[in-house]
Amino acid sequence: MFKSIFENILKDKPIVHCITNFVTVNDCANIILACGGSPTMAHHQGEVEEITENSQSLVLNMGNVHEVVSMILAGKKSNELKHPVVLDPVGIGGSKLRNEIFAKLSENMQFSVIRGNISEIKAIANGKSITKGLDADETDKVTEDNLNETVAMAKRLSESLKSVIAISGAIDIVADKEKAYVIRNGNPIMSKITGTGCMSTALIGALCGSNLDNILEATAAAVLVMGVSCDMAFKKMKKFEGGTMMFRMFLIDSISNMTSEVINVGMNIEEV
Amino acid sequence: MFKSIFENILKDKPIVHCITNFVTVNDCANIILACGGSPTMAHHQGEVEEITENSQSLVLNMGNVHEVVSMILAGKKSNELKHPVVLDPVGIGGSKLRNEIFAKLSENMQFSVIRGNISEIKAIANGKSITKGLDADETDKVTEDNLNETVAMAKRLSESLKSVIAISGAIDIVADKEKAYVIRNGNPIMSKITGTGCMSTALIGALCGSNLDNILEATAAAVLVMGVSCDMAFKKMKKFEGGTMMFRMFLIDSISNMTSEVINVGMNIEEV
Amino acid sequence: MFKSIFENILKDKPIVHCITNFVTVNDCANIILACGGSPTMAHHQGEVEEITENSQSLVLNMGNVHEVVSMILAGKKSNELKHPVVLDPVGIGGSKLRNEIFAKLSENMQFSVIRGNISEIKAIANGKSITKGLDADETDKVTEDNLNETVAMAKRLSESLKSVIAISGAIDIVADKEKAYVIRNGNPIMSKITGTGCMSTALIGALCGSNLDNILEATAAAVLVMGVSCDMAFKKMKKFEGGTMMFRMFLIDSISNMTSEVINVGMNIEEV
Repeated sequence: MFKSIFENILKDKPIVHCITNFVTVNDCANIILACGGSPTMAHHQGEVEEITENSQSLVLNMGNVHEVVSMILAGKKSNELKHPVVLDPVGIGGSKLRNEIFAKLSENMQFSVIRGNISEIKAIANGKSITKGLDADETDKVTEDNLNETVAMAKRLSESLKSVIAISGAIDIVADKEKAYVIRNGNPIMSKITGTGCMSTALIGALCGSNLDNILEATAAAVLVMGVSCDMAFKKMKKFEGGTMMFRMFLIDSISNMTSEVINVGMNIEEV
Repeated sequence: MFKSIFENILKDKPIVHCITNFVTVNDCANIILACGGSPTMAHHQGEVEEITENSQSLVLNMGNVHEVVSMILAGKKSNELKHPVVLDPVGIGGSKLRNEIFAKLSENMQFSVIRGNISEIKAIANGKSITKGLDADETDKVTEDNLNETVAMAKRLSESLKSVIAISGAIDIVADKEKAYVIRNGNPIMSKITGTGCMSTALIGALCGSNLDNILEATAAAVLVMGVSCDMAFKKMKKFEGGTMMFRMFLIDSISNMTSEVINVGMNIEEV
Repeated sequence: MFKSIFENILKDKPIVHCITNFVTVNDCANIILACGGSPTMAHHQGEVEEITENSQSLVLNMGNVHEVVSMILAGKKSNELKHPVVLDPVGIGGSKLRNEIFAKLSENMQFSVIRGNISEIKAIANGKSITKGLDADETDKVTEDNLNETVAMAKRLSESLKSVIAISGAIDIVADKEKAYVIRNGNPIMSKITGTGCMSTALIGALCGSNLDNILEATAAAVLVMGVSCDMAFKKMKKFEGGTMMFRMFLIDSISNMTSEVINVGMNIEEV
């Protein structure tokens, strides 16, 4: 199944419209290119609807808190055109402003996928998580012990929001209301570079853009390719005795050289 | 001839004022430094004229659609001071807003050089090309078959706009109304990283900044150094079994280590 | 002494709130992560006070000339909470706007540390230096000949502003009113990549965030770790026959792998 998902993106070369933050925008553009998509990072109110019309997918990253009007215009247009809309609720729970932005976006569009860390997803699910900075709170973390209840929470949230839910962490979860994938690839060094979350979201946007009828599996495939690439990049970084920036280079490099055979060998995915 | 162009930039260390987009701004700053210039990425209306006064060259990148007023202030001042003004019409043809911005900039300043992909240049020349996303449309691409007519188009456009025209692609063309250079360096991988167009424009700005009397050749030299560096970076990337991000690193690295001897050996340039 | 400074950051993992420019923001976030901190690059007026409340340190970079109101809100809040406030007066002296911004920030908050190149620091000290572009002016440069008077100037400025003063260059100086450290690590290649100044300031913010009672030494430690890492990165770059971008990668890599033992071996620091 994942094989056809990757074949579709190489065939379609979908244009992925991103309204995203200025910290990781370059990495997001490069990771979309690496996986076979074509990024367009346009966020001016005066053109976002047109840009969306010429795209196949929309990625909204709440790290850009200045472009809510543009996000709403692009999101409504995408819903109208039945393009996938992928939301990264960066920092939700960390300020009132971000909670308000999430509420405004939710009122105005339907998200196909929401991807965040566990603290961000919990903040959406029950408003009780406290996000400090941009990392998941220690007390929130997904472990083998709380995996079952977290999967159940993700499925319930998916049902209530009608969106695929992707939770990133040491263990990744991708769920709709009925089915969930649990992915155990990746490496703790991911939290030592900025933007791995944003990059995952951008990848999801790209893969969903050419797999409109299979959003759950396209999202799982994106999380999987990110995880397997991280495993490979970490090994290669160790070989060259590098550090975090060499890891980032090899992460995107691995995606640019990825094949479905490599993913099949490296993947650790389970359906629950 | 190219030898003296590169010597001039190392001697003058021109300050290159860029009003550019936030996706590739870091790469543009680093490539200007790599080739011997000194970048200043200032775009606030309240200071752009002063910044331009202390610079030797101005680069305007339409990927930044929010700073049109600043671009006009800086462009007028540059024209007044006879600084080269290099325009990158990113995404023209892709939205009405971008077409309007180009029109406003054109009304208010004279460009020394306009560099774009073939779809962008055609959008300027005849308004007929349709730009989708940021890449040149397949149907527009410059090939050996349509090379002569494309060169002729570039020369006519140069005459009508009184600007050197640089067209980037598998085959690069740099033309004024009388003369054109055709450059066959570079590698398809350039389209797999974001910003090679913006970086080329930044390089043109740097080389024009220290070669005011020789804008055509300075532009050709910039396109050439970009192409030869891409050739070198691609080989080095293959040697280390890397991917697109390693290619980007070696691209700027090659420029930072470039000599006119290396260019002479690697270049594939023809005057037509 | 430096040993405990580095141990504190690994223990505390301080959240460093940065309001910074879009050119080098990604490098700043990654260098904060590399040294053990957690960056949050939030600059919207509607949330900066809340973000600051959840952080341990504030970095204000005047390369972002659009967010002065946010800087003032965050700075006042940080002063109230006794968080360190580290200022990078990028480009001061280069435009009236930047001088005005510095004046506004100064009126509204107390800086713990100000870090700039010698031209920027002189512009603050006596308003006489002329900054062109972003590099220190040749006539300003700190040499062994003018070292004593520059240290004296830094101490006087520290006394008058009640801020630790850090001057970056071939020779680095970190001073309060009574004591100064002179650091002779680093490499001229630092001026061939964008953002080494901004990155130093970000590192200072991170180390001060977990060493509130020892701002002078935390600042010196940050300058030192930057210098030693540059030395290591330059050697590693030469080994792989790379250029400026490989240097940047190895610079942040070295910081991500840094230990107090490595610093002890590599450091060239003197108290004056």
